[in-house]
Amino acid sequence: SQPVWVDRAWAWLTGIVLAVVSKAVGFGRKAWSVGSDDPRRVVHGVKVGTGLTLVSLFYYTRPLYDGVGGWAMWAVMTVVVVFEYTVGGCLCKGFNRAIATSTAGFLAVGIHWAASKAGEKAEPVILSASVFILASAATFSRFIPAIKARFDYGITIFILTFSLVAVSGYRVDQLLFLAQERVYTISIGVGICLIVCVLVCPVWAGQELHLLVSGNLVKLADSLQGLVEECFMEDEAEEGKELPTAKSRGYKCVLNSKATEDSQANLAKWEPGHGRFRFRHPWSQYLKVAAAMRYCAYCMEAFNGSISSEIKAPEDMKSHLRGACIKLSLDSSNVLKELSSSIMSMKESRSIQCLVVEMKNGVQELQVALRSLPTDHVKKHRATLSLMEAMPLVTAASLLIEVSERVES
Amino acid sequence: SQPVWVDRAWAWLTGIVLAVVSKAVGFGRKAWSVGSDDPRRVVHGVKVGTGLTLVSLFYYTRPLYDGVGGWAMWAVMTVVVVFEYTVGGCLCKGFNRAIATSTAGFLAVGIHWAASKAGEKAEPVILSASVFILASAATFSRFIPAIKARFDYGITIFILTFSLVAVSGYRVDQLLFLAQERVYTISIGVGICLIVCVLVCPVWAGQELHLLVSGNLVKLADSLQGLVEECFMEDEAEEGKELPTAKSRGYKCVLNSKATEDSQANLAKWEPGHGRFRFRHPWSQYLKVAAAMRYCAYCMEAFNGSISSEIKAPEDMKSHLRGACIKLSLDSSNVLKELSSSIMSMKESRSIQCLVVEMKNGVQELQVALRSLPTDHVKKHRATLSLMEAMPLVTAASLLIEVSERVES
Repeated sequence: SQPVWVDRAWAWLTGIVLAVVSKAVGFGRKAWSVGSDDPRRVVHGVKVGTGLTLVSLFYYTRPLYDGVGGWAMWAVMTVVVVFEYTVGGCLCKGFNRAIATSTAGFLAVGIHWAASKAGEKAEPVILSASVFILASAATFSRFIPAIKARFDYGITIFILTFSLVAVSGYRVDQLLFLAQERVYTISIGVGICLIVCVLVCPVWAGQELHLLVSGNLVKLADSLQGLVEECFMEDEAEEGKELPTAKSRGYKCVLNSKATEDSQANLAKWEPGHGRFRFRHPWSQYLKVAAAMRYCAYCMEAFNGSISSEIKAPEDMKSHLRGACIKLSLDSSNVLKELSSSIMSMKESRSIQCLVVEMKNGVQELQVALRSLPTDHVKKHRATLSLMEAMPLVTAASLLIEVSERVES
Repeated sequence: SQPVWVDRAWAWLTGIVLAVVSKAVGFGRKAWSVGSDDPRRVVHGVKVGTGLTLVSLFYYTRPLYDGVGGWAMWAVMTVVVVFEYTVGGCLCKGFNRAIATSTAGFLAVGIHWAASKAGEKAEPVILSASVFILASAATFSRFIPAIKARFDYGITIFILTFSLVAVSGYRVDQLLFLAQERVYTISIGVGICLIVCVLVCPVWAGQELHLLVSGNLVKLADSLQGLVEECFMEDEAEEGKELPTAKSRGYKCVLNSKATEDSQANLAKWEPGHGRFRFRHPWSQYLKVAAAMRYCAYCMEAFNGSISSEIKAPEDMKSHLRGACIKLSLDSSNVLKELSSSIMSMKESRSIQCLVVEMKNGVQELQVALRSLPTDHVKKHRATLSLMEAMPLVTAASLLIEVSERVES
């Protein structure tokens, strides 16, 4: 029969193949879930493919085409680099690229011209020094937050174009001809990007932000209700009823969405009017709403921590406060949901004032319930925290109302 | 005398000049503060300038040089795009660029070869289709979080290289020659980047993360102490004493540092051993510590909200709880500071166990103080919140201890 090592090698090989296959299947499943979560991602992939194919066909069919070093390269590069998921991102990058290329080009041609006048020996010194100084200054300027947020990509392109042109061995008249060519190519690239990006299932950063904020409000409302219920139902739930944990963890999304919101608001400012949004829609108001929401989420995280701590409140105290707490959480989450739908429909809500008054009544009731609490329990902190948590909610809610009114007006 | 419009135009002009000057001065001041906050930023600017000048001089002095379309371009581009602030970032991008360029190049040459065998009519179809499919798939794969975090830049380069090579009109043997040239240029670019980045005042992402986490622990400790003092001293302070608000707002930094920490931990994994850090330093442990800290910061944000709310606790209750609360906050912040210095020195602290025991005693004392509270005050929630806040602190602290022990071992 076969020697032992053949068997071993065979086992080892099958092991590897199986591992690779299972890894591939896992990856495929993850990719599938990423795609099915939001089919627009697949559409985005197809859009980039379309843009690239268009630009390459455009150049493939022209006699002007002369290989990797020629025009086509810059158009292809523009499409690859400028094509972003949202229309705002695409516009922002296209604008950055256009402005940065042209300013850097002009500057470099000017310095080239000055250097060529300065004599043959001084020329390389002047050129190298200008590259050194401008690259250093531009790189440093990226650390300034206001510039970083808007022109980060533009600065890369500025440095790149400037050094390429300044270092190139061309004469000034050649450079002017090259610049003209480059302007054509980049406009063709940016144009194809924008056309594909806007015409084929456009993804607007502004709308994304709008949906994210109003969706997060609903999540917050659901998880507030869920958490309070969880807190008071716990013992009954242990007897078989399933806890609504998934729902009540919704606030965690709110905690970490700051970066997304900031970038979307930043990109939304570049977008023209679309759908129900005018050109200068007050996008920064969304950030204020989001900050207020994040504050609520912090409080809920603290509240959640106290629920899951080992110390339990005594049962009679719980039953004493249950009604008031659950009512308050219902009222608060109603206010949040109403706010969400009013942001969603971009109309001032009529019922919101009533709901806020009701919520404030709820707070009063809880305070009364607390006052009448039998006083021999020390570990009442859990219940008082509900109140604690309601306080900022009231503050936040009034802030939210103010903000939402500003958004709608 | 002069007509009115000249005066007006003059006033308007001076107004504009003044506005521009004040804007420029403001910008200069901001830039100065960005630079003086962390002089390494200025050094980074100078480093990029040096790298670019080096690479351009390298090509300026060689006869092989043939203008913007030639070799120099790729080396300059590599330097501009790969040079990052931290060594980890530089390595990560250089690695991404190298791998992506070579795989895309091989693939494209292969497809080119296959297409050229398929006949003249099928060739453009095969090439366009392959560009379309690969660009779509690669763009889509960027939405998968694990790939996004590590290979985002690499995928851009992959798409770029693949489309450039696939669409180019060159024959396969020409392509192989070009590829060889490209490998040389990119290695020269990446090499210059790495040499300048590592040898001139290197900024290590790992060390940054280390300093950030231990600094945040100290900030957290300070602001915990500051907040509790503020809460209990408030009324005395109103009589003239300044509130230590700046110090006690330190926890706000902790709230929003998640993105920075994640990216630094990600980059730190690329870095070789440096200073006191070995190659496979457990960077992900820092993220756990950071998550625990963020949880503390959430609680402190909730606590801060309750301090600044309109409802005041009665004075006698405050004085009743003052001692225990301040002691507890001192104990907790001592634990945090000890943890910070133990992370800083990367040694297991001997005194930390004692400090934790002391903190737990503090919690007990506060519970006793609460139990003996005169029971006719309803709005005791503020004081109880201190307890509330201490609870997660205890939990978090024990978590921190565990984690720090793992970091050190």
